[in-house]
Parts: sequence; C-alpha cells; structure tokens
Amino acid sequence: MSLIEDIQSCLSDDIKKMNDLIINHLSTKEELVTLVGKYLVDAGGKRIRPLLTMLSSKMFGYEGQNHILLATAVEFIHAATLLHDDVVDESTMRRFKPTANVIWGSKASILVGDFLFSQSFRLMVETGSTPAMRSLSRASSVIAEGEVSQLAKLKERRLISQAEYNEVITSKTAELFAASCEVGGIISNQSIDNCKIMWNFGIVLGKIFQIIDDLLDYFGSESLIGKNVADDFFEGKVTLPIILLYELLNKDYQTKLIEMIKAETRTQDNFLLVKELMEKHKIKQQIMDYLNSLKLEASSWLQLVNIENKYKDYLSRLVEFTINRTA
Amino acid sequence: MSLIEDIQSCLSDDIKKMNDLIINHLSTKEELVTLVGKYLVDAGGKRIRPLLTMLSSKMFGYEGQNHILLATAVEFIHAATLLHDDVVDESTMRRFKPTANVIWGSKASILVGDFLFSQSFRLMVETGSTPAMRSLSRASSVIAEGEVSQLAKLKERRLISQAEYNEVITSKTAELFAASCEVGGIISNQSIDNCKIMWNFGIVLGKIFQIIDDLLDYFGSESLIGKNVADDFFEGKVTLPIILLYELLNKDYQTKLIEMIKAETRTQDNFLLVKELMEKHKIKQQIMDYLNSLKLEASSWLQLVNIENKYKDYLSRLVEFTINRTA
Repeated sequence: MSLIEDIQSCLSDDIKKMNDLIINHLSTKEELVTLVGKYLVDAGGKRIRPLLTMLSSKMFGYEGQNHILLATAVEFIHAATLLHDDVVDESTMRRFKPTANVIWGSKASILVGDFLFSQSFRLMVETGSTPAMRSLSRASSVIAEGEVSQLAKLKERRLISQAEYNEVITSKTAELFAASCEVGGIISNQSIDNCKIMWNFGIVLGKIFQIIDDLLDYFGSESLIGKNVADDFFEGKVTLPIILLYELLNKDYQTKLIEMIKAETRTQDNFLLVKELMEKHKIKQQIMDYLNSLKLEASSWLQLVNIENKYKDYLSRLVEFTINRTA
Repeated sequence: MSLIEDIQSCLSDDIKKMNDLIINHLSTKEELVTLVGKYLVDAGGKRIRPLLTMLSSKMFGYEGQNHILLATAVEFIHAATLLHDDVVDESTMRRFKPTANVIWGSKASILVGDFLFSQSFRLMVETGSTPAMRSLSRASSVIAEGEVSQLAKLKERRLISQAEYNEVITSKTAELFAASCEVGGIISNQSIDNCKIMWNFGIVLGKIFQIIDDLLDYFGSESLIGKNVADDFFEGKVTLPIILLYELLNKDYQTKLIEMIKAETRTQDNFLLVKELMEKHKIKQQIMDYLNSLKLEASSWLQLVNIENKYKDYLSRLVEFTINRTA
C-alpha cells in the first residue's frame, strides 16, 4: 500500500465526512456550478493539502470536527485556484482529462472558481475560529498575489533569479501548504510557537512540491503526470531547471537560452536542445540534491514538535513521498 | 448638494478611514496588483454599497470601528465582481474609462479579482464577528451562483420569465445590497428581527438598482452612464424591458423578438426596432410604475425599524435616489 493509501485508510472516517461536505457545498440549483465543481473535485488527485490539515490536527490530539471544515475549505481554495490557473495558462489537460475551460469555456471556469472561493470562506466561518480564518484568508490572498507576480514576470520575458523563483513558488504554492498545516495547530489550541513550526514545515513541503512539479515539466512522463510535458517551457515560464541550467552554460548557449525566453513562441527543437543541455549538465541530479537539503529542513521543523505519534510519522513520510512523486 | 454628497459629507470621517483601508489593502510588492486595484477603486462610482453598511450601523447607534472594515470588505467584493464580470461579458467601457481587461488583459483581471476577493475576507475576519462574516461570505457565494446562472441562461438563448429574471437580479445584485445593510445591524447587536428587516430592505433596494441598470441599457444616455448603451441587447442578455415588451407584442412581433434572442448576434436595426416597440408600448413607464411599488415595499421594511434619526432618513431617501438615477 502506498503512503497516501495508508494515510487515507487511517483517516477514512474524516475523509468520508469531507467528501460529504464537498458534495453538500457543491449542490446548488444552478446545474452548471455543480457540474463544473464536481468535475474538478472528482478529478481529485491526492488531496495532499486537506490531508495535511487533518494530520496536523490529529497529531496535536484535536478531537472536534472543525478540522474537516477547514480541510474542505483548503481543498476548495485549491480547486478554485486550479480553475482560474487553467484559464490564465490556457491549459488544456489536467490529470488525464481536458480542463474545465476546454469543456465549459473559460467564463464558466472563472465564475465557478469564484463560487468555490466563496464556499471555502463559508466553510471557514462555520468553525468560528478567527485565527484559522486569518491564516487561510491570508494564504488565499498571497496565492493571488503570487499568480499576478508570475503573470507579470511572464510578460517581461526575461530570466528570473533563483530568489525571484523562490518568491513565486512560495506565494503561489507553499503558502497554502503552510496554512493547511498551521490551522491544524490553531484549532488544537497549540502555542504560537507550535503553530509557527507547522507553518514553516508547510512552507518547505510546499516548495518541494512545486519544485518537483516544475521538474516534471521537463523530466516527467506524460503517461504519468496526465498533462502535457513542457507546458511551462512552451509558455515561456522560467522555472528552476532553466535557472540552474543558465548558470552552467557557456556564453553562446546562455545567449541562445535568453533568445528562447525572449521569443514570442518556442519550437519543439528549442525544447529538445534545452532538454539535452539539461541532461548534459545533470540538472535533475542538482535539483534532487537541493530537494534533499529541503527535506532535511522540513524534518528539522517537525522535530521541534515535542510529540510522537503515527500522525507525525505520516507527516514526516509525506516529505519523502513528495520528493519521489512522479505524477 | 445631491443626496450622495450630503451622505458623504455626513460620513466624511468614516469615508476617509475607508479610503485609507482601501489603499492599505491594495498595497503589495506586486505593482500590477496595486495598479489594477487602484484603477478600479479610483473609478469609484457612488460607492452605494459601503455607504449602506455605514448608514445601517450608524442608524442603530453603532460606535465601534468594525463598520469601516465591513464597508471596505463590501466594496472589495463589489470591485472583484466587476473585474470578473467585465471579463465574462467582454465589456470594454465602464464609468467613462476602458475596462481593466482592455488595459491589462483578462488574465490580470481574473487574478487581481481573486486578490480583491481574498482581501475582502481578510478585512471581514478582522472584525471577529462570525455572523457578519457569515452574511457577507454567503452573499459572495450567491453572487457567483447568480453570475453562473446568468451565463447558463445566455447560452440557452431563450426568453426567460419574469420570475427567472427576478432570481438572477436578486442573486447577482440584491444579495450584496442586503448583506451590506444586514451587517450594520449585526455588529450593532440588533435583534435577529431587525437584522432580517435590514436584509429585506437591502434586497428591495438592490432589485431597484439592478432594474434601473437594465432600463438604462435601453433608455440611458451614453454621455451619462459612461458605458455603451445596448450592451445587454447586443450580448443577448434578456432583461426586464424585453420580458415586459414580449407580453405586449402581437404574435408576429413576438416571433421576431424570439428570433433576435435566438440569433448568434443582433444588428443595430434590431436594436432600433426593439427600442421603437418599447416606446410604443410604454415599457419605461410600466417599469417606473413597478419601481414605485418596490419603493413602497422598501419604505415599509424600513418603517418596521423603531428608530428615527438622520441615518434612517438617508437610507429612506436613497431608495428615491436610486430610482431617479440616470447613471
């Protein structure tokens, strides 16, 4: 059994309750909302973010029901973000299926995304926990800011620095991982220190998650990731593999790479050349080394929590799992 | 001095605080967010929704500062909705200026809209009032549902009934007016009855507001409304003037009207014919009569509040003002 299946079986009661909440909060008299919402949520994926909220709450011995409301809210924020992202990125495939914007059009995706955002806030409000709402609404705001920042950078058509890349992935991905972990501490009435530790753990895990995502865009297998490989490259999105590659190239190839980034579009030949250069310069290995250092960082955050139980163990193993994911 | 200027002068301290909050919550390190956000909020308009929150709070003698947080949240929800609406409707003009999607593209509009939504929730959370958050997050969810519903109806290209129209305008417009009024009661610790009364008052006022908007699309002057007249008609949006006209036409013209609604696009000649028929059948007068009955309904709700002060007086006069607006 894979780690995720293990966790799902351990949390099966809570997951069942979350699924009921999801269905309940997608049911409206407007069929199109239910249809698009269900399509997206059914595609499901691993639901790693809500699992983080559940595991973090359980690790701290939480015994109420608010973790289910918050986990569902987290999943809804994530789903809304995906809908809007796919419109902005003009993506056509996600998790082996055509994206919602392809099936129902981008207008429906925009509006159903707004609906999911609003529903996520309604779910949070039901917990009555102001600090939990503060954490998640802050994350949602930072995500939007990160997406705008990515869009602005894309328009500039330039190589970004590793520091800039770090900022983008922190805001667009890691902040929601962080809040998902933190709210588990918050509703369990943990100290500010413990909440902050969980937040930091989530940040590192989220960064790992996004770096792997960006790596898979170059080194993943379409039959595993369920979307087109090299989407980022053809879109002109500068991610870690490109940033690291640039550093290792000679002047001529550096110029070539910059030209590709500056160009209106990129060709299949461009991609093959970049891929070949990445292989030559062992970019994948370099990124895996970096990810292993992040893994140590994540573990050291978790070690600061003075608790030992299976939930903590699952959280710790999720880091390794995230690094090794191929889809 | 117009009524709005009168109200603005009476609430000038609070409005100044709101403007500061707006600027503060639009300031991010991502310039594009600030730029688009400021553009939209500067365009300003009458800011009738936040004024409702302030007036309703003051009427009930509220003396704290949460009404300013909530008024700003209301304005942000509204601004986010406008950004996304203009993308969905492919609008090019609003309040005498090109829309944000024309200037910065629809991708920026989608993402900055998400940012404004999130910021509105952060503002609400700062009040710590769960029932106020419940009211506004519910409204925000219903708005999105209403927008999807309008989109779905548009795709069906059919005449809708007055009941369906009523449902659309209630969800897409009136619900936010209602919540804007209701939260004033909520933070002033009013009885559920009083809060419900304010909610109902807001629903009627919001319906009046939207019906006037839809009327101006046929009978307004471009030089006053600051956007293209007949936008709804050319888009194929069926609103009250069309619904009422249909009832009064003979079979031949009914068939013609249905054909126009079913068509992929509509011509300038189509519009002129419809406008002529509307004039012949006194559609404007009929709608004004209906609005006057709604005005009585709004007043009767307000009369149920057992308070007399200038704030209540302003709220009451806002109904008349909304009916008489030409822009």
